[in-house]
Amino acid sequence: MSYIENINSPVDLKKLNLEEMKILAEEIREAILFRNSIVGGHVAPNLGIVEVAMALHYVFESPEDKIVWDVSHQCYPHKILTGRKEGFLSVEGIKKISGYTNQDESEHDFFKVGHTSTSVSLALGLAKARDIKKEKSNVIAVLGDGSLSGGEALEGLSNAGVFRGNFIVVLNDNEMSIAENHGGLYENLRLLRETKGNAECNMFKALGFCYKYVEDGNSLEDLIEAFSEIKDFGKPVVVHVHTKKGKGYKFAEGNKERWHWNFPFDIKTGESKVVFDKENYTEITYNFLNNKIKKDKSIVLVNAGTPGIFGLNSERRESLGENFVDVGIAEEHAVAFSSGLAKGGCKPVYMVMSSFVQRTYDQLSQDLALNENPAVILVEWGGISGADMTHLCVFDVAMISNIPNIVYLSPVSVEEYLAMLEWGIEQKEKSVVIRIPREVVHTENEVLKDYSELNIFDVVKKGSEVLVIGAGNFFRLAEKVCEKLEEKNINPTLINPRYLTGVDEKLLTELQTDHKIVITLEDGVLDGGFGEKIARFYGKSNVKVLNYGALKEFSDRVSIDELYERYRLKEDLIVEDILELL
Amino acid sequence: MSYIENINSPVDLKKLNLEEMKILAEEIREAILFRNSIVGGHVAPNLGIVEVAMALHYVFESPEDKIVWDVSHQCYPHKILTGRKEGFLSVEGIKKISGYTNQDESEHDFFKVGHTSTSVSLALGLAKARDIKKEKSNVIAVLGDGSLSGGEALEGLSNAGVFRGNFIVVLNDNEMSIAENHGGLYENLRLLRETKGNAECNMFKALGFCYKYVEDGNSLEDLIEAFSEIKDFGKPVVVHVHTKKGKGYKFAEGNKERWHWNFPFDIKTGESKVVFDKENYTEITYNFLNNKIKKDKSIVLVNAGTPGIFGLNSERRESLGENFVDVGIAEEHAVAFSSGLAKGGCKPVYMVMSSFVQRTYDQLSQDLALNENPAVILVEWGGISGADMTHLCVFDVAMISNIPNIVYLSPVSVEEYLAMLEWGIEQKEKSVVIRIPREVVHTENEVLKDYSELNIFDVVKKGSEVLVIGAGNFFRLAEKVCEKLEEKNINPTLINPRYLTGVDEKLLTELQTDHKIVITLEDGVLDGGFGEKIARFYGKSNVKVLNYGALKEFSDRVSIDELYERYRLKEDLIVEDILELL
Repeated sequence: MSYIENINSPVDLKKLNLEEMKILAEEIREAILFRNSIVGGHVAPNLGIVEVAMALHYVFESPEDKIVWDVSHQCYPHKILTGRKEGFLSVEGIKKISGYTNQDESEHDFFKVGHTSTSVSLALGLAKARDIKKEKSNVIAVLGDGSLSGGEALEGLSNAGVFRGNFIVVLNDNEMSIAENHGGLYENLRLLRETKGNAECNMFKALGFCYKYVEDGNSLEDLIEAFSEIKDFGKPVVVHVHTKKGKGYKFAEGNKERWHWNFPFDIKTGESKVVFDKENYTEITYNFLNNKIKKDKSIVLVNAGTPGIFGLNSERRESLGENFVDVGIAEEHAVAFSSGLAKGGCKPVYMVMSSFVQRTYDQLSQDLALNENPAVILVEWGGISGADMTHLCVFDVAMISNIPNIVYLSPVSVEEYLAMLEWGIEQKEKSVVIRIPREVVHTENEVLKDYSELNIFDVVKKGSEVLVIGAGNFFRLAEKVCEKLEEKNINPTLINPRYLTGVDEKLLTELQTDHKIVITLEDGVLDGGFGEKIARFYGKSNVKVLNYGALKEFSDRVSIDELYERYRLKEDLIVEDILELL
Repeated sequence: MSYIENINSPVDLKKLNLEEMKILAEEIREAILFRNSIVGGHVAPNLGIVEVAMALHYVFESPEDKIVWDVSHQCYPHKILTGRKEGFLSVEGIKKISGYTNQDESEHDFFKVGHTSTSVSLALGLAKARDIKKEKSNVIAVLGDGSLSGGEALEGLSNAGVFRGNFIVVLNDNEMSIAENHGGLYENLRLLRETKGNAECNMFKALGFCYKYVEDGNSLEDLIEAFSEIKDFGKPVVVHVHTKKGKGYKFAEGNKERWHWNFPFDIKTGESKVVFDKENYTEITYNFLNNKIKKDKSIVLVNAGTPGIFGLNSERRESLGENFVDVGIAEEHAVAFSSGLAKGGCKPVYMVMSSFVQRTYDQLSQDLALNENPAVILVEWGGISGADMTHLCVFDVAMISNIPNIVYLSPVSVEEYLAMLEWGIEQKEKSVVIRIPREVVHTENEVLKDYSELNIFDVVKKGSEVLVIGAGNFFRLAEKVCEKLEEKNINPTLINPRYLTGVDEKLLTELQTDHKIVITLEDGVLDGGFGEKIARFYGKSNVKVLNYGALKEFSDRVSIDELYERYRLKEDLIVEDILELL
């Protein structure tokens, strides 16, 4: 390392000549690989955008000129150039710097961002504020081609195209979303690449933008020239830069999809340091659905740009054929499209990560639930985690379960999960959401096959005095609480509620005669969640209710153990609370 | 009336010749005006699309061929042509037929729809299902130019453009959203109109569609010719039809915005039959903000295509100048843009109707709240109403209030509302949502000026035994409950909680010593709402909690009185419940 050590702010970059900058670019790549090899993270997007980040900081004057990174998963070079190289050069430094932009970390960041397609709208707000306040600066939204298909980005671009002032969009086109891109607009990007930006039919020009194409988006010379031309341009302009995802690391260049985001790996061999259990819900889900599709071609799997989360690699996607549809980053479309598929007589299964299902409240409500179309939505990764604050997965139950007509199921074993999935796909009456569990647990007990009679809770063990209701991932915790209580000579009742969208009123009314305390455990935020429904139900009774779950907060890379402690989600703490109350 | 009486299905339309169809078109217009003059509804959109609906039903074979209407506020001619003319010809018939499509009403409708920008995605699901099932039919998505700017529509179009099968989009371009259109894509529509569809730069072609332009979208001949050409076309095609909004009714043609949706009116004079109180929250809000903006140019009002709901007619919009931004139908952009404005040092106030704020859960969470940017969101029309199931306004509190960092305030008087608005705009720390109250009530009591210390409830009257917490619109009901209790010699405590996003733990803990029963009243759905937070808080105490609010359901044009009865939101019923429990 030589140049990178001396980069403490963009001012230091501006001191270098072109040859020195090229060496720095390679040092930045090494630093990116170093960090990712240790803690995992976004590999290929950051490798591809090194020169763009450098050229932006070379030409513009950050933070007076404001760069807004979409998703911000590609902000590593930007962080290295803006005083945060420590997060990429030493094991100790990594933890101090997050993988996304964060204005609390640096004045060169303007937003905490982790979801896609937001940069244009956020940046346009900054630009409008600048003009209202009669200030002068450049505002630059960096947008990836993958993010371009998201509705929010398209809304933003249409508004930005007629903005009367200086506004720059850098479209980083690496010809990939996480997986391949999907949608007509990518045909237009291809046409623009093929014509070196000269095609008359240009979606950006159609929206009102001036337009500039940079064929080699990894050429510092070309980028610096292009950005210099449009600096202080005074009108909305799109600079379409064609970059190479994964640039400079052979494994990433060779398999861009696998290297979009990686667990820790060995830099030399590219091999992952993390080994997964053979039996996991990704494989269980894929195998079940794939077998079903072989027999029933009316089943259609729908995904919005994140097939890898569901184990749907390119071979599997190809083999699924017309029974798999990746709509690209277009979550709203995915839900409405699934509703349409169901109405048309197909059996859609929309697969989505908890954090991203947030993008579709209105589609779930209006396009799907209001119409009671029998689509199934599989929510993956739901629950408390040590994730970055932009990727928390604790809000899905509170968001979804208060929408009328939706049946939200939370299985506690493989067998129950598959029974629910089977029922959800085959039934014709309800919009069904299933929260994929985390821990693989099998049961030998008979599981319910038919969930059409709603809100029938499962009494796993009948006792008295204390009633423990453990939903989904926390059913095991509920079991442990019961065991601890039994050690104290209390004989509790244990319930798996199965349904998160309602209360088994008959059962809970019966149980109120010989129970004093009800405990609810849920792997999600308490506010608006499942436990509050139980608290409301028992509000007018003498039964006491204690709700356990996550507090309403954006926790940021807090370890799961620390969060469990903070939320008292440990059997000892819960039993302590119960004994105090008894 | 002569022809319309004999139209019982599209088959009857096909029997007419062109001259007869033209007479029928005028009869349909009269029927639309008749219905709207009695119960109100969408006037200009329906008058403009009469010929399009007729030509579609003349050329295609509904319901085998499937027409999906966006928003479906323009479905009146379609309803008249598909066996539902009774809803437009007699006062008795009106109630039987809703103002939106509804598959329970007719096999010619496929979805219950009332929000914008969904038709392409829903229809694409039908088309995909058709192909999977090896069926043959035409699927037609009708999309208005206003709806085109919504992210969901753009996501849908990008996916539809590369669909490998028969798929038709009819773009009904009447050069208007509810108000004027906003966004770069409207420049492209203008270019296409001006070049009679021949411009090379064509956003639909850019997305992969074949494209056809119909200059006179109110000419039956031209429409029938165009639709006949693209019937069974086999590829995705956009038919861009240029229609006249309000066609055939001089008042509507003259003022398209005012006649987009109307209260009951006199057909001859165009005068509204509904007179509003001089003092209402629309005017109060406008006057307050307008006066503030005169002194502080950093305040920016943001709206997404519904300025009329906030009294922002064209004169007012013009006078507000750069301090008002209508982003068009682009709710997601509106929230992110507001967050950017706030980050840039402006004071944004985003004004949105309760039912439409649903389109922005993720933007509220990620773009705004996570960043703690000091934008203000004004939610209008929140609460239980007799609305169509597609336009309910009872879900906003459950949706918004469980997002971390947001402060959701619910004022109970004009003075408190303005104090909250003033504070929200001037403070720099929080993302603030304010639910505009419904009934104009003044208070002479001092109201709090500073809401930065969160969740401090207002004890309006201190009593004992029974605690009544009345939020927002239902504070008056809480007062009435207290009055009734006093008649029974009970001296209750009355609380205005002010905040919907948290609990005043200190106060509620104190009150638990001398209160047995707590009543919560909220004008929204109970599930995930404010009352459940109180029930959870008191869960482990001896205090009993009764929550009152709306049940989780999509009620459909049920009168507000009937709903209040159903939900026991009447002082007598509530007092009955209290007495039973005491």
